[in-house]
Amino acid sequence: MIILGLDPSLSCTGWGVIRVEGSRIGHIANGQVKTDAKASLPDRLAYLDTVLAAVIADHAPACAAVEEVFVNDNPQSTLKLAHARGVVLLGCARGGLTVTEYAPRLVKKAIVGTGGAAKEQVQAMLRVLLPGAKVAGADAADALAVAICHANHRPRI
Amino acid sequence: MIILGLDPSLSCTGWGVIRVEGSRIGHIANGQVKTDAKASLPDRLAYLDTVLAAVIADHAPACAAVEEVFVNDNPQSTLKLAHARGVVLLGCARGGLTVTEYAPRLVKKAIVGTGGAAKEQVQAMLRVLLPGAKVAGADAADALAVAICHANHRPRI
Repeated sequence: MIILGLDPSLSCTGWGVIRVEGSRIGHIANGQVKTDAKASLPDRLAYLDTVLAAVIADHAPACAAVEEVFVNDNPQSTLKLAHARGVVLLGCARGGLTVTEYAPRLVKKAIVGTGGAAKEQVQAMLRVLLPGAKVAGADAADALAVAICHANHRPRI
Repeated sequence: MIILGLDPSLSCTGWGVIRVEGSRIGHIANGQVKTDAKASLPDRLAYLDTVLAAVIADHAPACAAVEEVFVNDNPQSTLKLAHARGVVLLGCARGGLTVTEYAPRLVKKAIVGTGGAAKEQVQAMLRVLLPGAKVAGADAADALAVAICHANHRPRI
């Protein structure tokens, strides 16, 4: 099964595609969608939508996984993130993917074994879990992490 | 010129279409897109996207107007709203519409003459400004109000 992990944000959305066969996990692709901060909000969202549609068309994932979102210390940033997240969830629905949301702590636990793990620990474990994968950046790493979390937690048929 | 006003929210997005010729404003259509609270978030966003695309195809507006959004007393509601708003802004961009955002106070001022006007005052003035228009509900009224605000504030060519 192919799983698409997503880490949405307006400035830089991470995505990661993995293949799961039984208990084996393999890296397929990952990347980051950076939008032009000088462009209008609708145009930035349209660019994100276009790239995400191409990623889904290229890799034909069976399902998607994304972190839950909360209003944090910077409400304006969270608001921007939620605009991008709405577009990302729409793109998944349009692509026929079911989307599962995971709490950030659960994602860290799935990768490192503890919900309080630092970003660097998650990235180090990704290098172990997906050997040879060239990770495009921190947002792509987060996207791969939530994809692996889904691989571990998805219902087995 | 035909203007599309939008009042996005996840549960019920209002839309209103008006025609502006010089200083004359006329009502064309309005409505509300209610999504099924029992459906998944991606499916609710996809439904909103589909209906909005049909509204844009039906009425071929030249541009769109929407209220600015702020994180209010209920951050979780604002977060849901921002997901829907991202989808609505994307729909406008995909439809080739430029989108202008207006502060809520400016919208009230455009309709009633004062930024502190109550919702009921806005709705009463809408009945005067758009005589005979059957307004689908409070969200459609807000959408018509922001469309009229744009009619008054848009740059003249």
